[in-house]
Amino acid sequence: MSDAYPEDLREQVERYLQALRFVEDEAAPGVEGLEEAMRYSLLAGGKRIRPVLALAAARAVGADPAEVLPLAAAIELIHTYSLIHDDLPAMDNDDLRRGRPTCHRAFGENVAILAGDGLYAEAFRHVLTRQQGEPPAILAAVAELATGTGVNGMVGGQYLDVTERAPAGPEGLRSIHVLKTGRLIAASVLCPLHLVLTGEPARIDLFRGFASELGVLFQIVDDILDVTGSEDALGKPHGSDARLGKRTYVSAYGLDRARELAAESHSKARAALAQAAPGRAPELEQIADFIVTRSS
Amino acid sequence: MSDAYPEDLREQVERYLQALRFVEDEAAPGVEGLEEAMRYSLLAGGKRIRPVLALAAARAVGADPAEVLPLAAAIELIHTYSLIHDDLPAMDNDDLRRGRPTCHRAFGENVAILAGDGLYAEAFRHVLTRQQGEPPAILAAVAELATGTGVNGMVGGQYLDVTERAPAGPEGLRSIHVLKTGRLIAASVLCPLHLVLTGEPARIDLFRGFASELGVLFQIVDDILDVTGSEDALGKPHGSDARLGKRTYVSAYGLDRARELAAESHSKARAALAQAAPGRAPELEQIADFIVTRSS
Repeated sequence: MSDAYPEDLREQVERYLQALRFVEDEAAPGVEGLEEAMRYSLLAGGKRIRPVLALAAARAVGADPAEVLPLAAAIELIHTYSLIHDDLPAMDNDDLRRGRPTCHRAFGENVAILAGDGLYAEAFRHVLTRQQGEPPAILAAVAELATGTGVNGMVGGQYLDVTERAPAGPEGLRSIHVLKTGRLIAASVLCPLHLVLTGEPARIDLFRGFASELGVLFQIVDDILDVTGSEDALGKPHGSDARLGKRTYVSAYGLDRARELAAESHSKARAALAQAAPGRAPELEQIADFIVTRSS
Repeated sequence: MSDAYPEDLREQVERYLQALRFVEDEAAPGVEGLEEAMRYSLLAGGKRIRPVLALAAARAVGADPAEVLPLAAAIELIHTYSLIHDDLPAMDNDDLRRGRPTCHRAFGENVAILAGDGLYAEAFRHVLTRQQGEPPAILAAVAELATGTGVNGMVGGQYLDVTERAPAGPEGLRSIHVLKTGRLIAASVLCPLHLVLTGEPARIDLFRGFASELGVLFQIVDDILDVTGSEDALGKPHGSDARLGKRTYVSAYGLDRARELAAESHSKARAALAQAAPGRAPELEQIADFIVTRSS
């Protein structure tokens, strides 16, 4: 298994995100403080897995990754918004994220709620106003993004997670994670394909199995790391899932079986990718491998 | 001045909203409780000024209002999300809205945050998947919506309002309100025009003055009603702006001058409308009149 990561794509993403500004000064005097809170959370580093996936997916079907940067950035804005809201006192009540105070600890709870709201709005604005492509393709990509982050996706999954309303048993656990994490990971692969493979829905569908499985894999490993990861690497205290009494792959199956499930999920993801883009997606392979071997 | 209201348009909106569902059961088992919280806030009644404006604007340029219902509904979803988040303990900490417990009082703070997040996501999903029209026109309408509700619009205005970071003086006060309330009101007029007047930006621009002024008018009257309105009509205790120490047109200018400003703003809005659509927009005239004469 490779332990490489497509660093060139990550650097492209990072540079692009660093340059992003949201406030149009004349339109909104005084709003710079909100932008500061948004950028504080957005620019906290990390592997940028979702936007890097988007760039890698574009490359896997023959496009220049730079062409989908606005879309990729929008995905990372949305991911950042979800982290800010998940960390809020009424949710997971986390004080630390990537080794730094969470947004609400640094800026106050009201500003954190609005920073999340603002990132979500600006994600849509950015992709709708900056992404090049055929208008129907952009519509399809943004619709996929909205669907993946709404009640049948990320927000619904977070609801199941915090309220413990998911059905009992393995199906319920899987449903929490598919919605909460899986749909945005999957959208990160599928949205750029809508842009690049306009009018080729069958080719896009080929990638759906890979995209979904990657989301599941990501969450199984996340659950394992919450138990086994070092606090330094995680940037927050481990065991926070257990503290909140959350249903995780580790609490449901035990650590050993969770590791087996991760390995099985990784194999399924790689197999699905090999079918969708045989030999043509080295970066997507690297990301799948990275997800299963990562330590934070 | 007319005291009529385009009730036929309001009924169309109301029926459409009542029929909306968000959860796809197979995709998201257990998420029904989130939908319940979203619909609780969405279906709390009211004049539906924003979606009715959208329908009236479509009619003013010769379209069948029903054609823009998905867009109009999305605007009301967004407005509802903003109310839910504004009411949160970390924001205005309101217990009542339209005479009923606010979303977080009825469902808990975590569910209320997610109900707001979910409504925003579903607003975009709905308009992107259900609105008929030319794809470039839909893109323009949704971009206007995202811009009007982002950091240079609604969310930025709410930030200025809760953090008191707006510049001092009348310009700062106006900027809070233009962003917080005005941009979404203006978008309610302009978004449907993007759909109907595809390729006629000059005709859309004609309506911008009316749309902006209507937003200002709405907020001046809102500030007056917070002081003078009956609690029954408002559905919440009056004086909540003063309790929170907020800058309002009444605190800045006094009640009498605020009323004069409302009358001036109303005249400007009507004049701008008369230029944009001379004699062809009776419903838009009614809404402008209603906003200045309303009691809740």
